[in-house]
Amino acid sequence: MIKLYHWPLDPAARTVRLALGEKQLAFEPVETRPWAAHPEVEHLAPGAAAPALLSSGEDGRLVLLGSHAILEHLEEAFTATRLLSNTRQERAEARRLWRWCEDAFAIVSETLLTERVTQWVRREREPDSAALRKGAHALRGRLTFLNALAEERSYLAGRHLSLADLSAAAHLSSLDYFGDVDWSTVPDLKSWYARLKSRPSFRPLLSERIDGTRAARHYADLDF
Amino acid sequence: MIKLYHWPLDPAARTVRLALGEKQLAFEPVETRPWAAHPEVEHLAPGAAAPALLSSGEDGRLVLLGSHAILEHLEEAFTATRLLSNTRQERAEARRLWRWCEDAFAIVSETLLTERVTQWVRREREPDSAALRKGAHALRGRLTFLNALAEERSYLAGRHLSLADLSAAAHLSSLDYFGDVDWSTVPDLKSWYARLKSRPSFRPLLSERIDGTRAARHYADLDF
Repeated sequence: MIKLYHWPLDPAARTVRLALGEKQLAFEPVETRPWAAHPEVEHLAPGAAAPALLSSGEDGRLVLLGSHAILEHLEEAFTATRLLSNTRQERAEARRLWRWCEDAFAIVSETLLTERVTQWVRREREPDSAALRKGAHALRGRLTFLNALAEERSYLAGRHLSLADLSAAAHLSSLDYFGDVDWSTVPDLKSWYARLKSRPSFRPLLSERIDGTRAARHYADLDF
Repeated sequence: MIKLYHWPLDPAARTVRLALGEKQLAFEPVETRPWAAHPEVEHLAPGAAAPALLSSGEDGRLVLLGSHAILEHLEEAFTATRLLSNTRQERAEARRLWRWCEDAFAIVSETLLTERVTQWVRREREPDSAALRKGAHALRGRLTFLNALAEERSYLAGRHLSLADLSAAAHLSSLDYFGDVDWSTVPDLKSWYARLKSRPSFRPLLSERIDGTRAARHYADLDF
């Protein structure tokens, strides 16, 4: 039994949901909000925050906090579908790019994504245009780098689907929900994303709608 | 044979050096600078940056980029000394706090540490006082959280030394080099750090001096 505390638009939590989907692990979702404390999560450990995964099984009860701990654990515990290759060099490249995505998109999430959420989900105020510009500029740099990888490789870290793909796709999907990804400038990345979107693990993300918001028209289109 | 490209004050690279020390793995260090490209590192992969570890051995040649990929690899390949417990719950807690350190100290490195380096290592200009204040404020928050953990646990993630301890100690050691950690406010964390400092793996860091700088008087003192 797996229970996942997550906020639907959180890219780290989306990476976890995609990994659970790829590994065909069912879970009970519990929605949290990054701007409000969640008492059940807070009680798990000092400083605990979503994404948080509780699992109970043969090993007893496990409390896994943060996408790094959750994803490395899923990789160790459920080996039928691998998201980190058996080959050491490929594992290392996947981990490098997975981590690159999390670090490089942090500033985009803090600016562009946060402003969209403030405007459309929380409906608190108009977005701050300086933050939007800063985020959009950073996003263009990330897209260019990822496009160069997609031009040379079937998947971001090489020949196989890995956590690097899931992390990049998770980040891009949250931004794409609000129509903030200009796919026309990155054709190779667009083809890669079209392939990712077609995977069954992506379906729950594409069919999801956040209260009070409308997703960008092409958000769920497999042929966009 | 292990070769490590690293910048001596980079907390991520210090974490790697501490892990290599704990595992008693000798390596050839090559110094890089975050503000200047290093052609050998750049050629390793698109977007490659230090810390970068090259290893050649039974498995052939491996290129490991970024502290996440390097440290998870060292943990998989050299199991005689473990820095992530055998127990799944303890592994997860160590990975959570390791990652917490890297995320939570990012803003401190970008402000406080960067200003000290600009002032004392690069000797480019006087520090920006707003950045120093922002970094010092963030650092106080991190110290409070880590002190609360050190109050209850022998090591940050529980009963055993882990990558969480090495990451936290690495970040604090770079800041402590410039005298920026006020240990008087966090007595339990201070005792924990004194224990970390006494480990043989810490010696190379404590004896190191960066060109043109003087380390804070207590930096290398085991009894500070």
